[in-house]
Amino acid sequence: MSASAHAPKAAPELIEEVVAGNRILFQQNIVDAFGHLSVRHDQDPSKYIMARHLAPGLVTAEDLVTFDLDSNPVGDTSQRYYSERFIHGEIYKARPEVVAVVHCHAPELIPFGVTKAPLRPVYHMSGFLGAGVARFEIRDTGGMTDMLVRTPALGHALAQSLGDKPMVLMRGHGATMVGATIKQVVYRAIYAARNAGLQMEALRLGDVTYLESEEAAKAAATNDKAMERAWGLWESEAMGTR
Amino acid sequence: MSASAHAPKAAPELIEEVVAGNRILFQQNIVDAFGHLSVRHDQDPSKYIMARHLAPGLVTAEDLVTFDLDSNPVGDTSQRYYSERFIHGEIYKARPEVVAVVHCHAPELIPFGVTKAPLRPVYHMSGFLGAGVARFEIRDTGGMTDMLVRTPALGHALAQSLGDKPMVLMRGHGATMVGATIKQVVYRAIYAARNAGLQMEALRLGDVTYLESEEAAKAAATNDKAMERAWGLWESEAMGTR
Amino acid sequence: MSASAHAPKAAPELIEEVVAGNRILFQQNIVDAFGHLSVRHDQDPSKYIMARHLAPGLVTAEDLVTFDLDSNPVGDTSQRYYSERFIHGEIYKARPEVVAVVHCHAPELIPFGVTKAPLRPVYHMSGFLGAGVARFEIRDTGGMTDMLVRTPALGHALAQSLGDKPMVLMRGHGATMVGATIKQVVYRAIYAARNAGLQMEALRLGDVTYLESEEAAKAAATNDKAMERAWGLWESEAMGTR
Amino acid sequence: MSASAHAPKAAPELIEEVVAGNRILFQQNIVDAFGHLSVRHDQDPSKYIMARHLAPGLVTAEDLVTFDLDSNPVGDTSQRYYSERFIHGEIYKARPEVVAVVHCHAPELIPFGVTKAPLRPVYHMSGFLGAGVARFEIRDTGGMTDMLVRTPALGHALAQSLGDKPMVLMRGHGATMVGATIKQVVYRAIYAARNAGLQMEALRLGDVTYLESEEAAKAAATNDKAMERAWGLWESEAMGTR
Repeated sequence: MSASAHAPKAAPELIEEVVAGNRILFQQNIVDAFGHLSVRHDQDPSKYIMARHLAPGLVTAEDLVTFDLDSNPVGDTSQRYYSERFIHGEIYKARPEVVAVVHCHAPELIPFGVTKAPLRPVYHMSGFLGAGVARFEIRDTGGMTDMLVRTPALGHALAQSLGDKPMVLMRGHGATMVGATIKQVVYRAIYAARNAGLQMEALRLGDVTYLESEEAAKAAATNDKAMERAWGLWESEAMGTR
Repeated sequence: MSASAHAPKAAPELIEEVVAGNRILFQQNIVDAFGHLSVRHDQDPSKYIMARHLAPGLVTAEDLVTFDLDSNPVGDTSQRYYSERFIHGEIYKARPEVVAVVHCHAPELIPFGVTKAPLRPVYHMSGFLGAGVARFEIRDTGGMTDMLVRTPALGHALAQSLGDKPMVLMRGHGATMVGATIKQVVYRAIYAARNAGLQMEALRLGDVTYLESEEAAKAAATNDKAMERAWGLWESEAMGTR
Repeated sequence: MSASAHAPKAAPELIEEVVAGNRILFQQNIVDAFGHLSVRHDQDPSKYIMARHLAPGLVTAEDLVTFDLDSNPVGDTSQRYYSERFIHGEIYKARPEVVAVVHCHAPELIPFGVTKAPLRPVYHMSGFLGAGVARFEIRDTGGMTDMLVRTPALGHALAQSLGDKPMVLMRGHGATMVGATIKQVVYRAIYAARNAGLQMEALRLGDVTYLESEEAAKAAATNDKAMERAWGLWESEAMGTR
Repeated sequence: MSASAHAPKAAPELIEEVVAGNRILFQQNIVDAFGHLSVRHDQDPSKYIMARHLAPGLVTAEDLVTFDLDSNPVGDTSQRYYSERFIHGEIYKARPEVVAVVHCHAPELIPFGVTKAPLRPVYHMSGFLGAGVARFEIRDTGGMTDMLVRTPALGHALAQSLGDKPMVLMRGHGATMVGATIKQVVYRAIYAARNAGLQMEALRLGDVTYLESEEAAKAAATNDKAMERAWGLWESEAMGTR
């Protein structure tokens, strides 16, 4: 990539939303020092924006970098970047309608990734899970790895596993969610984790009645219209303005 | 509803209590960005007061709206309202003695709503559960829905399911509690959730001795006289005055 | 009791310790709005000191009241007192060596109180549990009650159940611990609850190796000499001086 | 040890790191009032640095003491020291490559120490567990003790049990981790505990797919290069600079 390449300038509100999203994911215990949030560039769909190699809870606007879909940084290449940025680039390639991606190790999701228990919607807040949750076994493509999606090939394999689903569980690693907006993907990450926690508790009590797929789809559509209410609260908590 | 309709003016202490109740429910993890608290109007029993479409943790006196029992806003109708306000209006219609209603998705309650495990009082703090916990299956009335009680008919069906009980578990959704005062309903929401968490743990250890109904009824009567002590603490925590 | 009775004046450091103990129990999630801590009067072993009817997290020196061992307030009798103060008075009567008492509804302890699972020391921090944990069934004495130890007779029955043990689990209610100092009883309340939580988790994993009684006794003796270290931390957290 | 002995002066950055490490372990719930972190002296490998008898969350640079490998304080001997400092000294003797040691009672680790359930890596973050987790039964060497490693002989036995592993579970007590740096040992303590919590949840859901040892080893090598990211976040949280 030429050092003279220039990244197009994203809308200030988008930048603000990426920063807030990073902070929210940390404040809501979806990411710890690890994990990342990206958004497709609003001026150029063949680019995406994500922080440099930094804990999400510490990200500011100055830490954001533009990448092409091969996950090369555009312009300044002097910093360290997330080694797993290929998760993002390869999903944006495979899923043109996806605008935002979260990769995380949310504690409630790990147990579902390392067992055969299917993650299913126990309540309306996580209706989007009704569309199905994909699984990614890195051994199938990578054999014995350090578990990280650190190459375009592994990113491509992950995107293939994800298919047309909203989310993929990564065995022994974490999960990746996609959305049509930053707000949607953050919402999905938070409520996927909450659903996982609730489902584990419910399974302890006996047979669980999950949402039917029609209920789940309708609930998901409704939630998409109510997300602003949650975002407002989360942002105020994460940015310390409440 | 006529735009010239005017809502009667509620006592300032009542307004203050609704605001504090919203904040307490959030601070005690009974509601997150979703859920609501209402109170029957102190000047007109055919009205109730509840926040506009807003996360309970952010509610101030300015956000409170008066509704008639058909859940139409009285006076100003320019804002967005909770789509599930019919829960409140229809319960106030069906239960003249009810003065306050909480609807929530408290995490500890969800597992009991999606399984057949009965929620029963494990200790005196939740003695009110001894009067019985109703269940609401929205499919019975609504078929395949988005799970929300978004019509007068669904609100009516929920009120029918609630019957004369203090609380109803809503499958795949959450729970609704009623009370004779704001303090009582907030207390019930908090201790219903705590009881659920404790009951899940106790069931793990073996056969559980629950309160007998007479014990439960007596404990509930006692708690009603000790609520102020809890409210004082919760308010100081939620309003940041402690 | 004569209104002209005067309570002897306790040492300022004792008063300070009672206040700190109340705050610590709240900060460490052993008590919520309910529960209480008392200490035998340092000037008169036939008296004890405890807060008036108030959430422990809000207690200040001004809220402390002196009681005789029949649990009557000495001097000023104009306030509201804990209805369960007989727990304290009757234990001080039955156990002359006891200097401090905690009554609480710590969440981790409730499940052990309502099942037959024995609470046993899983690690050295809770070695004092090796001396045995008593159980109190209020039905044996009181029949169908509101579960509260609200009379001298019930207090006496509880003290009988406690016997010579450091702690008694109260079915459907909570637990009461005793100690030779405020620091010891606060330590016991905190680590009894922690042990209960750990034991529940351990039981899930298979057969548990508990401390042998000799190990437990030796560990308890050691802990008694290391409590200051914990108290210093807890106090700094609870009083906001850290 | 001669009172005129002088401890060599450690690099200021090392001192700063020991203090930060203590605070991080407390802030991340790995230690409470008990537990300790030590580092081998950077100027003299036959010495190590650790706090005096103090809760880790309260440690400052002024509280650090230099010990020889027999765990005698060098220079000033007027203070109280951790009775279990032999854990550290004896491990430094037995493992010349070890530079830092953590001893803790992290709640998630206790259940694994008192049962036969093997602690194994469920995800890449805890890949270092793939090298194996040792177990220490104090009864084998000490018979009926107070569970504390309070003598050189017990410290030696613990070091023998640890062998060449990164971590040892101590039955009825806690765990001890070793590392090549302070950052590594703190990372290991935190992710050992998190892994334990996740593994307990996963076991509830059915058969668990753990990392293969090759995956675990590769993940561990990768994590060693990403630790700074976590340390930066933890430090900012623990030192209140975030």
